[in-house]
Amino acid sequence: MNIFGEDTICAISTASGTAAIAVIRLSGPRSHEIALSIFTRQGKTLNINDIRAYGVYYGEIKDPDEDTAIDDVLMTFFKAPHSYTGEDSVEISCHGSQYIQQRIMELLVQRGARLARGGEYTMRAFANKKMDLVQAEAVADLIASRSREAHDMAVAQMRGGFSQKINELRQQLIDFTALIELELDFSEEDVEFADRERFKVLIESLKQEIKQLTDSFKTGNAIKNGIPVAIVGKPNVGKSTLLNALLHEDRAIVSDIPGTTRDSIEDTYVINGHTFRFIDTAGLRKVDDVVENIGIERTYRKMNEAVIILYMCNITEFDIMELKEFEQYINNKDKHFILVANKTDLLDKNTSLEINIPNIDVVYISAKKKDNIQQITDMLASQAEKMYSEQDVIVSNVRHHEALTRTYSDLEAIEKGMDDGIPTDLMTTDIRAALFHLGSITGEITTDDVLQSVFSRFCIGK
Amino acid sequence: MNIFGEDTICAISTASGTAAIAVIRLSGPRSHEIALSIFTRQGKTLNINDIRAYGVYYGEIKDPDEDTAIDDVLMTFFKAPHSYTGEDSVEISCHGSQYIQQRIMELLVQRGARLARGGEYTMRAFANKKMDLVQAEAVADLIASRSREAHDMAVAQMRGGFSQKINELRQQLIDFTALIELELDFSEEDVEFADRERFKVLIESLKQEIKQLTDSFKTGNAIKNGIPVAIVGKPNVGKSTLLNALLHEDRAIVSDIPGTTRDSIEDTYVINGHTFRFIDTAGLRKVDDVVENIGIERTYRKMNEAVIILYMCNITEFDIMELKEFEQYINNKDKHFILVANKTDLLDKNTSLEINIPNIDVVYISAKKKDNIQQITDMLASQAEKMYSEQDVIVSNVRHHEALTRTYSDLEAIEKGMDDGIPTDLMTTDIRAALFHLGSITGEITTDDVLQSVFSRFCIGK
Repeated sequence: MNIFGEDTICAISTASGTAAIAVIRLSGPRSHEIALSIFTRQGKTLNINDIRAYGVYYGEIKDPDEDTAIDDVLMTFFKAPHSYTGEDSVEISCHGSQYIQQRIMELLVQRGARLARGGEYTMRAFANKKMDLVQAEAVADLIASRSREAHDMAVAQMRGGFSQKINELRQQLIDFTALIELELDFSEEDVEFADRERFKVLIESLKQEIKQLTDSFKTGNAIKNGIPVAIVGKPNVGKSTLLNALLHEDRAIVSDIPGTTRDSIEDTYVINGHTFRFIDTAGLRKVDDVVENIGIERTYRKMNEAVIILYMCNITEFDIMELKEFEQYINNKDKHFILVANKTDLLDKNTSLEINIPNIDVVYISAKKKDNIQQITDMLASQAEKMYSEQDVIVSNVRHHEALTRTYSDLEAIEKGMDDGIPTDLMTTDIRAALFHLGSITGEITTDDVLQSVFSRFCIGK
Repeated sequence: MNIFGEDTICAISTASGTAAIAVIRLSGPRSHEIALSIFTRQGKTLNINDIRAYGVYYGEIKDPDEDTAIDDVLMTFFKAPHSYTGEDSVEISCHGSQYIQQRIMELLVQRGARLARGGEYTMRAFANKKMDLVQAEAVADLIASRSREAHDMAVAQMRGGFSQKINELRQQLIDFTALIELELDFSEEDVEFADRERFKVLIESLKQEIKQLTDSFKTGNAIKNGIPVAIVGKPNVGKSTLLNALLHEDRAIVSDIPGTTRDSIEDTYVINGHTFRFIDTAGLRKVDDVVENIGIERTYRKMNEAVIILYMCNITEFDIMELKEFEQYINNKDKHFILVANKTDLLDKNTSLEINIPNIDVVYISAKKKDNIQQITDMLASQAEKMYSEQDVIVSNVRHHEALTRTYSDLEAIEKGMDDGIPTDLMTTDIRAALFHLGSITGEITTDDVLQSVFSRFCIGK
């Protein structure tokens, strides 16, 4: 039984515009029949029973009512359950004229197909258990991904690594719950099937694992939306020049990937395949007045979002106390500091200065002359790679993060309940909540609202 | 022997942008090998000898050097000569993320494919005799077509109707030339194998057929670039209001075909699936002063381009002499006149006026109230259909038109030569020129310049 009933859907799945090729997809019980009704091969229609699954057929699309040729196309047939959606489906590869695309869509609709809604193909794949909800969400992330890390993270999620992790956690909880529920059945006999101490240990370990996952969201979010970087320093140390130099490098590197260089989000750039989000630090212009100036605190708070801080100074005026002061002021946990000593071009030829500070990388540049900019780019890239490689499974989805956070609270409630010695039947409420929240991630348990919000992110045709 | 040597080419063939699906095409002797070198199915690479022609394979694209997954794709394999280009080729259907498209292209290039130039796939199809030059040009027209007629004309040309016509004409000339050349071989014996009178009749009939074709260019060009329509009339008769009303209808009708409504060429509109090009008649505002005003003559010349003339008048001030005067002034051969009597809303309820003029359609409207606009739209559409149906084979390509015009001159030169009694060997020069010009149309005879100019019109990936 298909939850979508008898609907057969169609959509143009390639980008809109005029091109050599466009692909139109049909999915649903009538997809073969509808596609074949407008298709001929050397003047003959094909018999639906002769169609080979995973077979490509070259032929002509005609408007049967007018007997006019629309286009020469390739049709590929897929049979349920061996297709993306798990249903019978057809891909029509036609010439990419807008007129042709539109005419074929009209014909399909006339013959009984319905225009697909955004994400409806993937929603059907989910309904037919071709993938879970996390994997479905990964498909949307994959299509939207513009940097290497975002892409790799989406592929990993599509491959099911994260889902497996969640399922393992959930299974542990389910196994234990089975024992708890057994106790309830025998409650009058006052038996304890579930070992309370072992349960405490389990809850503690689940909490830790979930904590790790929720913590990874910072990384996941940075990968998806750009790693936040702040360039700070006194006025006239060359912050804008550095930013321009960094972005100039960038353009050269990514120019063959149209549209990736500058995202629609202000100040997000792809450098060496990594997305960085530069935090506006205009408000920090008077770094030396900082402690006196309360008003600037807000800007500092914003800067606390940064994962990487490029602290710039003029090498001819370097003041180690200023840096130390700044470092203390910023909540420097989890932050990677890079000290950028600028204006090396102003030093005498024979002068050199070497700065050594524990846990701070130092790079000597001339932003103006574009000397050594590559070294900063390399440091940013290596920091991005480090963030990425440190975590086994990364949470990048707000919905997942929220469900995990709720699960964590449920586990805390269970723990507290046990400490307070509340009755077993009351404890099961919290356990069920934890199971619900974990299950909602992969879609084991789901609601229409969740599905609608997940699939509304998809483009038409996927 | 392939004239392109060992090159294997690759290109993204779908429109650029992020979408559910993108298609990358490979063509050339190494296309299967290159595609398979980055492709695995359940972790295993496929053997090139096991690949089924017209077979679709689902699997994963990996960067073999880094062992990182790029995407899950469908690969379709075609074997020479049964492919679009006539060569071995592969279509890769991947997720439409820009990052993925770019990465796959990079991998293909690393493994030895070269980026395809615009039209290179079709150029190879031509070189491998999958289609002639006229059919190749029709492919570009097909992709660019935005109206029904332009589309249908391109399909007809792709199906080979026009090519067949040209080949027939050329064959008649070749058969006769064979006899003429035979005469030259026996020239000392003064034999006349070729009957001069029959030859004259042949040339005359060829001239007529070519004349018909060159004449059809006006229609072909109108279909491709829009049928030129002039809206003329005295000031304040409602010309702009009519244009707006026409275009408003239009928008409603074609709104589901994005981008077709307004072409980049100023004032080209698609109405009911037909493209019309409205000629700016601002300069004609003082139609009644026309004969006195020499300066306005230039505007009249421009208006002579029009195929359809909508002559507008205010029905409450209709003056038949004014219309007659205008009609005489315009070179009205081949023009379709429609008299638009506007402002019916100003007439008394009980008044009615019926205008009858031979060969002129009359329509009574209120542009302001949008009364009866549909009737004009219908008339424009029916005129477009009439133009299209009147001709069997339509020339729509400037290059074809030029070659036909030259052939016509060659035929005239042959005729003149025969009348002047020039020696047979001199006559053959003109015959060869005629054969050359006819042959250049379908690409029987061609030069690099012609090929380059033909295929430079194509988009990348076709």
